[in-house]
Amino acid sequence: MKNYLRMYIVELIGTFFLVFTVGSAVMLNGAGVIPAIAIGFALMVMVYAGGHISGGHYNPAVSLAAAIRGALPVKQVIPYWISQVLGGGAAALLVNHFVKEVPVAQCCGFTPGAIITGEFLFTFALCYVVLQTATSRNLEGNSFYGLAIGSTVTVGAFAAGGILCYGAFNPAVAVGLGIMNSACWNCLAITITANLIAAIAAAFVYKFTVNE
Amino acid sequence: MKNYLRMYIVELIGTFFLVFTVGSAVMLNGAGVIPAIAIGFALMVMVYAGGHISGGHYNPAVSLAAAIRGALPVKQVIPYWISQVLGGGAAALLVNHFVKEVPVAQCCGFTPGAIITGEFLFTFALCYVVLQTATSRNLEGNSFYGLAIGSTVTVGAFAAGGILCYGAFNPAVAVGLGIMNSACWNCLAITITANLIAAIAAAFVYKFTVNE
Amino acid sequence: MKNYLRMYIVELIGTFFLVFTVGSAVMLNGAGVIPAIAIGFALMVMVYAGGHISGGHYNPAVSLAAAIRGALPVKQVIPYWISQVLGGGAAALLVNHFVKEVPVAQCCGFTPGAIITGEFLFTFALCYVVLQTATSRNLEGNSFYGLAIGSTVTVGAFAAGGILCYGAFNPAVAVGLGIMNSACWNCLAITITANLIAAIAAAFVYKFTVNE
Amino acid sequence: MKNYLRMYIVELIGTFFLVFTVGSAVMLNGAGVIPAIAIGFALMVMVYAGGHISGGHYNPAVSLAAAIRGALPVKQVIPYWISQVLGGGAAALLVNHFVKEVPVAQCCGFTPGAIITGEFLFTFALCYVVLQTATSRNLEGNSFYGLAIGSTVTVGAFAAGGILCYGAFNPAVAVGLGIMNSACWNCLAITITANLIAAIAAAFVYKFTVNE
Repeated sequence: MKNYLRMYIVELIGTFFLVFTVGSAVMLNGAGVIPAIAIGFALMVMVYAGGHISGGHYNPAVSLAAAIRGALPVKQVIPYWISQVLGGGAAALLVNHFVKEVPVAQCCGFTPGAIITGEFLFTFALCYVVLQTATSRNLEGNSFYGLAIGSTVTVGAFAAGGILCYGAFNPAVAVGLGIMNSACWNCLAITITANLIAAIAAAFVYKFTVNE
Repeated sequence: MKNYLRMYIVELIGTFFLVFTVGSAVMLNGAGVIPAIAIGFALMVMVYAGGHISGGHYNPAVSLAAAIRGALPVKQVIPYWISQVLGGGAAALLVNHFVKEVPVAQCCGFTPGAIITGEFLFTFALCYVVLQTATSRNLEGNSFYGLAIGSTVTVGAFAAGGILCYGAFNPAVAVGLGIMNSACWNCLAITITANLIAAIAAAFVYKFTVNE
Repeated sequence: MKNYLRMYIVELIGTFFLVFTVGSAVMLNGAGVIPAIAIGFALMVMVYAGGHISGGHYNPAVSLAAAIRGALPVKQVIPYWISQVLGGGAAALLVNHFVKEVPVAQCCGFTPGAIITGEFLFTFALCYVVLQTATSRNLEGNSFYGLAIGSTVTVGAFAAGGILCYGAFNPAVAVGLGIMNSACWNCLAITITANLIAAIAAAFVYKFTVNE
Repeated sequence: MKNYLRMYIVELIGTFFLVFTVGSAVMLNGAGVIPAIAIGFALMVMVYAGGHISGGHYNPAVSLAAAIRGALPVKQVIPYWISQVLGGGAAALLVNHFVKEVPVAQCCGFTPGAIITGEFLFTFALCYVVLQTATSRNLEGNSFYGLAIGSTVTVGAFAAGGILCYGAFNPAVAVGLGIMNSACWNCLAITITANLIAAIAAAFVYKFTVNE
């Protein structure tokens, strides 16, 4: 039991700092280069700190992909999701309290097709990079997995940030952005759905491409 | 057969994300710092994810250099090139559809001498860095090859981007930029020729400098 | 004795360059992106250079956390603190002399609640990342600890820099910023107190999450 | 003989790209953030590519420090210096030809005291980081030496760039900047002298701090 509790705490801490960083960086600087770099660095740092304990997901889509790939016991998926959403939600409330609250966003106006495409593509890339660099036996003991994983989110934010309402490629961050009113609740369901479908696709592509 | 198919899929996925990122970043931000960093990060991420399967080239010039150096079977060069151009082309069409289409570029006006020099120099640097860091036996098992390879493209974009029509040091990306109309077709032939000659030169310099 | 003297010199050199860099970067560019990146890079570089000799703390809060975790003998804490403050203080005086002196700052006006929260959160994150990546037996021999540690400070500066008077998550840097008049002395005590409490909290969370 | 020729070629290639990058980046963007990042990335890339062959110095000050520390045969210092200055000089001429020529600079007006201090401090930091991360037996086989070395130059450019005429912490780059007229010849002698004295100081501090 204690073994799993350790993992949940690490997932909660990591998602907390991820959401606090992205929320605060967006509120202080607006969407753009700084939040894109800040979220990638924050994810990298927390993956390096906690990867050896919990796998360092901090993202329900990544936990789903890891479970399909066999790197996380299936019955741990729901507790991981709860830890991630609790950590992200707590961070969002704290940002609301200490930084500033933005006015309630109306619907962002991006087309569902663009949102689904962008969220699918870079959540796929993120889960593909996580599975390849952090769970493949060929690359065991490498020192680059955190850099690769964090940078994938930065790349996605640079490449697709302009056509997406959320653009975090992470349902827990999406919920946090909703709580901070920096993205619109109308787009949350299709965002999260695209994230989870991308995770499933990445897990199957991973299984096909890796020869272990 | 399945072994090679896995490699082609990895090359296609990696080049897809490389071209999608650079195209989208250029269209949303114009040429400049953000695309220079985004393309370097995207290449780094995909090299780390797929290097252990296909070598992580995502670039016909790199595949040519790898074949001359003996790191890729010669008969795999054409299938690798096809996978890379297909991935890059698909990404370009998707960017055209979802981001925005730029008007057809007229000839960019850069001199052929500057284009040949800039494309030669940094494609040479890229292939030299790939061969040294990712195929040299002295450095086996290192964790920095992706960082070094991706950063070389960023350096080239900072250093020579201002004198080049394409400046991707990669024929598959060049074709993608052409499809997206963000570079002029008139310069494509000399760009790709300079890329491939640089790859050959880098392979021979590599062979001379390495003592294995 | 000589063994410890070597460590004190390494701590002094590292903290000197850390404070010189942040002070000079703030004075030349104002608070913002450049100092946030510069301080993270400076810390990373010095952690990689000196970590194998002294642990590469350059930060009284980190030395405290390391002592609680058992990675630094308790009787070395005070000499480490002295080395760090001497290095940081010397750097601050040199910046005052060669770069430029800013006018004496009046009280910054940030609320104590925001300062305590921001300093606590990211000093906690920094100590947590240091203990996990640089002292955990599971990750022995990794090459990423410096990147992770330096980037944590950059993340903190992006995320919380806007609500903090100091925002260095490091009492020795705070003293240096005070000497350079780029932060207000009124906030120094609560800043340092929050840093040290965060270090204690991080050490206990580390002990709970790691299973060695 | 061929063994040494290989090393000279690697030093020449690396210094060529270092000077081409910094010169071109300065000419296209002016002194500032982009050249600071570009020179650090360029050095990192070339250190990773050539370090296993020549040590990856690309800098007469580093070669001097390496010789004092015992990592380079003393009789190789002069051939290394020649290779570095030839590579850097060729790059400077090419930048003059293809990018644009800036008007002859008059004396920059920085005080000798500031120039000596800034060049000394960060050339010291650079040589100290090189010796610790790339030649210390305690850190053999690490994957971070290139990142640490390149980033040190970026840190120096952020921290001291504003008070220095050259600010490359590298005599070969200084000669290149002179040829490109982007720094004033009047300051070259004190710049190079400060670089070489810093190298000597760093070598002795290294020897004192390392226990092998």
